[in-house]
Amino acid sequence: MRILVLHGPNLNLLGSRDPEIYGSFSQEYILSHLTSLFPTYSFHLFQSNHEGEIIDVIQQKEYDALLINIGGYTHTSVSIHDALEAVKPVAIEVHISHVEKREAFRQQSLVARHCLGTISGFGIAGYELAVRFLASNYPPTSAN
Amino acid sequence: MRILVLHGPNLNLLGSRDPEIYGSFSQEYILSHLTSLFPTYSFHLFQSNHEGEIIDVIQQKEYDALLINIGGYTHTSVSIHDALEAVKPVAIEVHISHVEKREAFRQQSLVARHCLGTISGFGIAGYELAVRFLASNYPPTSAN
Amino acid sequence: MRILVLHGPNLNLLGSRDPEIYGSFSQEYILSHLTSLFPTYSFHLFQSNHEGEIIDVIQQKEYDALLINIGGYTHTSVSIHDALEAVKPVAIEVHISHVEKREAFRQQSLVARHCLGTISGFGIAGYELAVRFLASNYPPTSAN
Amino acid sequence: MRILVLHGPNLNLLGSRDPEIYGSFSQEYILSHLTSLFPTYSFHLFQSNHEGEIIDVIQQKEYDALLINIGGYTHTSVSIHDALEAVKPVAIEVHISHVEKREAFRQQSLVARHCLGTISGFGIAGYELAVRFLASNYPPTSAN
Amino acid sequence: MRILVLHGPNLNLLGSRDPEIYGSFSQEYILSHLTSLFPTYSFHLFQSNHEGEIIDVIQQKEYDALLINIGGYTHTSVSIHDALEAVKPVAIEVHISHVEKREAFRQQSLVARHCLGTISGFGIAGYELAVRFLASNYPPTSAN
Amino acid sequence: MRILVLHGPNLNLLGSRDPEIYGSFSQEYILSHLTSLFPTYSFHLFQSNHEGEIIDVIQQKEYDALLINIGGYTHTSVSIHDALEAVKPVAIEVHISHVEKREAFRQQSLVARHCLGTISGFGIAGYELAVRFLASNYPPTSAN
Amino acid sequence: MRILVLHGPNLNLLGSRDPEIYGSFSQEYILSHLTSLFPTYSFHLFQSNHEGEIIDVIQQKEYDALLINIGGYTHTSVSIHDALEAVKPVAIEVHISHVEKREAFRQQSLVARHCLGTISGFGIAGYELAVRFLASNYPPTSAN
Amino acid sequence: MRILVLHGPNLNLLGSRDPEIYGSFSQEYILSHLTSLFPTYSFHLFQSNHEGEIIDVIQQKEYDALLINIGGYTHTSVSIHDALEAVKPVAIEVHISHVEKREAFRQQSLVARHCLGTISGFGIAGYELAVRFLASNYPPTSAN
Amino acid sequence: MRILVLHGPNLNLLGSRDPEIYGSFSQEYILSHLTSLFPTYSFHLFQSNHEGEIIDVIQQKEYDALLINIGGYTHTSVSIHDALEAVKPVAIEVHISHVEKREAFRQQSLVARHCLGTISGFGIAGYELAVRFLASNYPPTSAN
Amino acid sequence: MRILVLHGPNLNLLGSRDPEIYGSFSQEYILSHLTSLFPTYSFHLFQSNHEGEIIDVIQQKEYDALLINIGGYTHTSVSIHDALEAVKPVAIEVHISHVEKREAFRQQSLVARHCLGTISGFGIAGYELAVRFLASNYPPTSAN
Amino acid sequence: MRILVLHGPNLNLLGSRDPEIYGSFSQEYILSHLTSLFPTYSFHLFQSNHEGEIIDVIQQKEYDALLINIGGYTHTSVSIHDALEAVKPVAIEVHISHVEKREAFRQQSLVARHCLGTISGFGIAGYELAVRFLASNYPPTSAN
Amino acid sequence: MRILVLHGPNLNLLGSRDPEIYGSFSQEYILSHLTSLFPTYSFHLFQSNHEGEIIDVIQQKEYDALLINIGGYTHTSVSIHDALEAVKPVAIEVHISHVEKREAFRQQSLVARHCLGTISGFGIAGYELAVRFLASNYPPTSAN
Repeated sequence: MRILVLHGPNLNLLGSRDPEIYGSFSQEYILSHLTSLFPTYSFHLFQSNHEGEIIDVIQQKEYDALLINIGGYTHTSVSIHDALEAVKPVAIEVHISHVEKREAFRQQSLVARHCLGTISGFGIAGYELAVRFLASNYPPTSAN
Repeated sequence: MRILVLHGPNLNLLGSRDPEIYGSFSQEYILSHLTSLFPTYSFHLFQSNHEGEIIDVIQQKEYDALLINIGGYTHTSVSIHDALEAVKPVAIEVHISHVEKREAFRQQSLVARHCLGTISGFGIAGYELAVRFLASNYPPTSAN
Repeated sequence: MRILVLHGPNLNLLGSRDPEIYGSFSQEYILSHLTSLFPTYSFHLFQSNHEGEIIDVIQQKEYDALLINIGGYTHTSVSIHDALEAVKPVAIEVHISHVEKREAFRQQSLVARHCLGTISGFGIAGYELAVRFLASNYPPTSAN
Repeated sequence: MRILVLHGPNLNLLGSRDPEIYGSFSQEYILSHLTSLFPTYSFHLFQSNHEGEIIDVIQQKEYDALLINIGGYTHTSVSIHDALEAVKPVAIEVHISHVEKREAFRQQSLVARHCLGTISGFGIAGYELAVRFLASNYPPTSAN
Repeated sequence: MRILVLHGPNLNLLGSRDPEIYGSFSQEYILSHLTSLFPTYSFHLFQSNHEGEIIDVIQQKEYDALLINIGGYTHTSVSIHDALEAVKPVAIEVHISHVEKREAFRQQSLVARHCLGTISGFGIAGYELAVRFLASNYPPTSAN
Repeated sequence: MRILVLHGPNLNLLGSRDPEIYGSFSQEYILSHLTSLFPTYSFHLFQSNHEGEIIDVIQQKEYDALLINIGGYTHTSVSIHDALEAVKPVAIEVHISHVEKREAFRQQSLVARHCLGTISGFGIAGYELAVRFLASNYPPTSAN
Repeated sequence: MRILVLHGPNLNLLGSRDPEIYGSFSQEYILSHLTSLFPTYSFHLFQSNHEGEIIDVIQQKEYDALLINIGGYTHTSVSIHDALEAVKPVAIEVHISHVEKREAFRQQSLVARHCLGTISGFGIAGYELAVRFLASNYPPTSAN
Repeated sequence: MRILVLHGPNLNLLGSRDPEIYGSFSQEYILSHLTSLFPTYSFHLFQSNHEGEIIDVIQQKEYDALLINIGGYTHTSVSIHDALEAVKPVAIEVHISHVEKREAFRQQSLVARHCLGTISGFGIAGYELAVRFLASNYPPTSAN
Repeated sequence: MRILVLHGPNLNLLGSRDPEIYGSFSQEYILSHLTSLFPTYSFHLFQSNHEGEIIDVIQQKEYDALLINIGGYTHTSVSIHDALEAVKPVAIEVHISHVEKREAFRQQSLVARHCLGTISGFGIAGYELAVRFLASNYPPTSAN
Repeated sequence: MRILVLHGPNLNLLGSRDPEIYGSFSQEYILSHLTSLFPTYSFHLFQSNHEGEIIDVIQQKEYDALLINIGGYTHTSVSIHDALEAVKPVAIEVHISHVEKREAFRQQSLVARHCLGTISGFGIAGYELAVRFLASNYPPTSAN
Repeated sequence: MRILVLHGPNLNLLGSRDPEIYGSFSQEYILSHLTSLFPTYSFHLFQSNHEGEIIDVIQQKEYDALLINIGGYTHTSVSIHDALEAVKPVAIEVHISHVEKREAFRQQSLVARHCLGTISGFGIAGYELAVRFLASNYPPTSAN
Repeated sequence: MRILVLHGPNLNLLGSRDPEIYGSFSQEYILSHLTSLFPTYSFHLFQSNHEGEIIDVIQQKEYDALLINIGGYTHTSVSIHDALEAVKPVAIEVHISHVEKREAFRQQSLVARHCLGTISGFGIAGYELAVRFLASNYPPTSAN
């Protein structure tokens, strides 16, 4: 099973940006950590600051499931909303910080309504929880 | 470690109410399922339809951590909000359905701001994910 | 047929509270009046100032139909809304005063969407009208 | 006693329009049904799609009581509101469907504040309930 | 100069409706009073409860100036707004009561933006004041 | 195929009202222009400033398709909305000016949700475009 | 009878400020014009840019009636509202321009609810109309 | 005179909850402090986290005056509002913290409109001030 | 200790304005009453209808504590808010009437957030209560 | 004449995405269909999921007219709005579905105010209608 | 060239009020600093806590340009807005703190729309920047 | 010191777009003008219509200070807001036009809260003012 960690703007700064909020782990660490925990899965990362590239990747469907954390676009992008609505992926929304505690403009998610569920506030452990759910509900693929 | 599953109004109907939304598992099943998965923890259930009883239980602090799912009070109870603010428990908010997809009056959580994080939309698997997070971050107690 | 008059907060004051608004009849009078009018039905009263007790009673389903007038909870209780949504009773919403003429915070009913219909403003005659509708549409039971 | 059933726009379609919502009975049926139930009263029908004609009829006061169901004008007509305020008829608001369950723009009634009460959601039985209330509270006239 | 007093819904009730608010003078009195005060002008009255008839009369332009008081349509009629915008009459808005002191839904006037000015709260004296303004600014016609 | 051009308030002024906005063509020109372009169809015009007459005509169904442009009622008439909902005609909404560029109170259309589509801003050419669409999708009738 | 023209901020600029809006007449002209028209009255002017001075003058009650035009304070001054509420003068609100056509923040008048009526949009003729109304309803005083 | 200190949710935590906000005094201290200051009065305490119990106590009227501080229910309970409206007690609203400085959802009090006055922000001294007011305005009773 | 009673617009009318709301006591009575009750303090009064003068006095700091009741400016004056924020006086907000029961535009206080607490609705007794609080918490000064 | 079909995010999925809403025709079909209908024009397609690329293309002006359908950016992109405002192209807004019937966040178009008109709800026939309008109003170019 | 630094309420406290926000420089320092930097200009200061005095000074026009910083009146004074609209001075809006980062009630400026531009957040250096702009665009006067 | 002029969508059109609003100077002119005025600094320009590219450039930090003018993204981009929040550059917001005078959707800046200050409305002179501020507060670098 091929799982894509789909990261939006500023998530490439993980590990250096405000560690007291976002922790001290990089994107690469998340990927290697998931791989060591779930060796029968294949994990991939796509990060972009570009709304259009995120839509492109969603449409190309080169994944079996998405762990989706698209930062600021979560709250503003009708176009990513439409891409998810059209493609209908197996997807889980993950937020590292607890967005429910932050600014008013982060209280609406245009992503949530196209995901199985949302995991918010657990730091990078949120990704692990999301894969645990997938692991219990979707058969792993031997290769990809 | 003593973990209290704190359930609010109508969660006693789990297993019989709208199974296509809430699944076919009862509260008792959740408890026995968690116990079998995490045998070193002690799980307890408190369910009430009464806002005041939920506040009473939060205040009595006979738990090390809360898995909190208080149904309709999530969105309306300033008083439970205040109890959590006063007691400051280790707590995780769990919702069986994906509340982000439901009515407008369910889009505000007065509980979230006093929890470590929120897990929404994964059915009863959400409880398991919440305990997995606790298990990685809190040492289990031998007994209680 | 067993009909439960389900009364919320302050309806126990009927007959003594602001008679120019609520009339001079007590809850007990309503019950005996309905019994004399509809002798083949069995009428019961449950009044509580406690939101949780009202939910408990709705869930226990010891009635064939509800005449529901839950006072201030009509406008604020998501949890009673959820109980009605789960249990799906035969229910009619009754208000003694004409709530459409009162404060802005009384203009939303979370109860209405789970009832057959609403009767508002006819004093205690509203209960009689509600039962007349039930009588024409539901066969009376010989006992209960 | 002369009772006018005052119907607004599209109620002339009763019996043919969306029967699953509005039932299969025509306006004429309502009138004959009421006449057979309450033979000491005189029932009349006035239906119009024209806001102005409805105001004209309210002003002419050729009735002892109104059963008023003015469809879409219920929610938008300040002018009918003013006519009722000026004339102060004995009036009961009736809605065949349960408007509390419908679109947001139907949640305000400019008619309600000038009526004795409101009966909503009982199909054409609502008219019968309204007349029962009148019958208990107003002496019938021998003829008119 | 031909001056049309253009009256909307319920103004035909002047003299009988709530005299403490609207005074005890009829429409006919207003007309004869204006005629006696301003004998060189020709006064006419058109009253209708029908929005469409009011638009018809505005379009027919059989007047040199309008004294416009269209009751409840003042606040709701985009269509009369459009008629005035298209025809661009010499018009003065008159209200007998002081609408600024009344319900919230009367605080917007769709008529005002197409009038020279507004006179509100002076009872039927408002009509006289409006004509005084016209008399000082428009030459009277000998006949019409 | 019998096509009714259904015009609301002030559209009878076409050709004389603000030509820089609405163009210099009359309603009659529109009709004869459509007839010359689509000779196998039968075109009819109904214009009224009266909301009630527009509802009457919609209900009478003496047309196979509607080109509907009801001016100010587009934005305010719940009753016409209800008539279209009840009758379910083949209908296309046409606006001569580009309403999206105008006042805030013109930004909501209660008509649109009961039409196949909307054409706005093309002057009287909008009617021609609407018929072209009908011509491609509905067989013309030999006579009527 | 002693009539005070009570002018608020920027009305001292009358005659020089934007003549196309406010006309070319000064405050002094208004006073002498009123005096010539109504010789049995005594007219006085008080203009101030200071909210507090306007309140002082209202409280001192050295007038029999007020013609009140307090410019920008009309829309913002709760304190002048309170002064009028306390003193309860005979007062008429006058606006030179037609405020109903101007910015949104001018659409609320805190003055209107304490005046007999409002005259808006007639230029300085509005003052004359206001005094005409007073002259018909209040006996003039011989001197003061 | 029998004075009831009526405390809502979480006030049982006084003395232990966030002392920097709520001070270090318990409920019992408040009661003994008031008793020592006002020996001719009889003070009683009722605290509950249950909305319904608070309504019950208000209705039972076993007090001559209420010092009412019902925590989070202050802002949300229409039902307690209705109980106060029905019973019409001599009541003073007290808040230990200065609620005007806190979250937006605490800025509305449904209790205030049924109290003589409100005292907010003085810590437990607020209770003493409230009784001082009662002492000056109500004769103490010798016993109760 | 020097205590300044700082009064805003219209409070100079105390004793004459609407006695049923504001009581029959003048400002001078308040001062002499406080002086007789608390002879070790020095009481001063400053009343002004001028927003700027109130700011001037706050800035001059010729007081040890403020009893602040600035009438209509309570709700509108960002500038007085800023003066209090800059000077940070010992201050208590007092209102004679219970503002929570009055118009919507009185429900926001820009003063409260810079005061120790608020006392509202107790008539002139509110001043006494405020000084009692100061007396218990601040040492009196021998003279000034 | 060179006509650019400018497509925004997810329109590359036409033909595969939700055919019951968007039909079964691809972008390429639209282009070839338009070319066959209007052989004297030259049609080009630019589709991008990237907001910036759409702005780039608008600025480069390598077209005589635009048929613009930019999906989700229609409702959110101030920057595309600014590009159209700066470049002032001949443009027509086309929507395949009837956006007036969809989610609230699709009810505002930032594109419309810079287009000649809008065609919404006619499926891919909307493009043909748009070109018909251009064909009647703009001379075709022989080549390009 | 005569440049007036026009300061509103509380700016006289500069240098003593919250130095971490407003810096440690007094108004006098600003004036002498500007004079030393731009010796060919004549700088003057007018500070007042009184809205009316600020309007007076704007109207008297004894300046060639304004540097305007009127503190709390920036956000609330329609009357100063009107004075600027009437007088049309050469004016630049300066704020010492960055108002965009502060309370919601400071986010609207009624001053901005009558100024050449706004400079916000640069401390007292903002005044220097404003004069630099004037110096490049307006010829200095030899004396005054 | 290396200063980056960071320009968002449509600023590449400077000099050709609406010169009456944006002036007749190109981006290149701004750069050479700044270079000639401040020869000890190194100025660079990055303009993009792509939100993602702007975030990329902010993150790469190849500058000592930013002059940031990102056009339409100023008001809509949560993602650029987040990039600035993460990187915390020395930045000044510049707008060529006075945005405070323009459309409602331009009244919110998501950029301002991460800048030292804002300069708006001075045309291209705004850039010069911004550098003057930097020059007084940051030591120039000899080269880069």
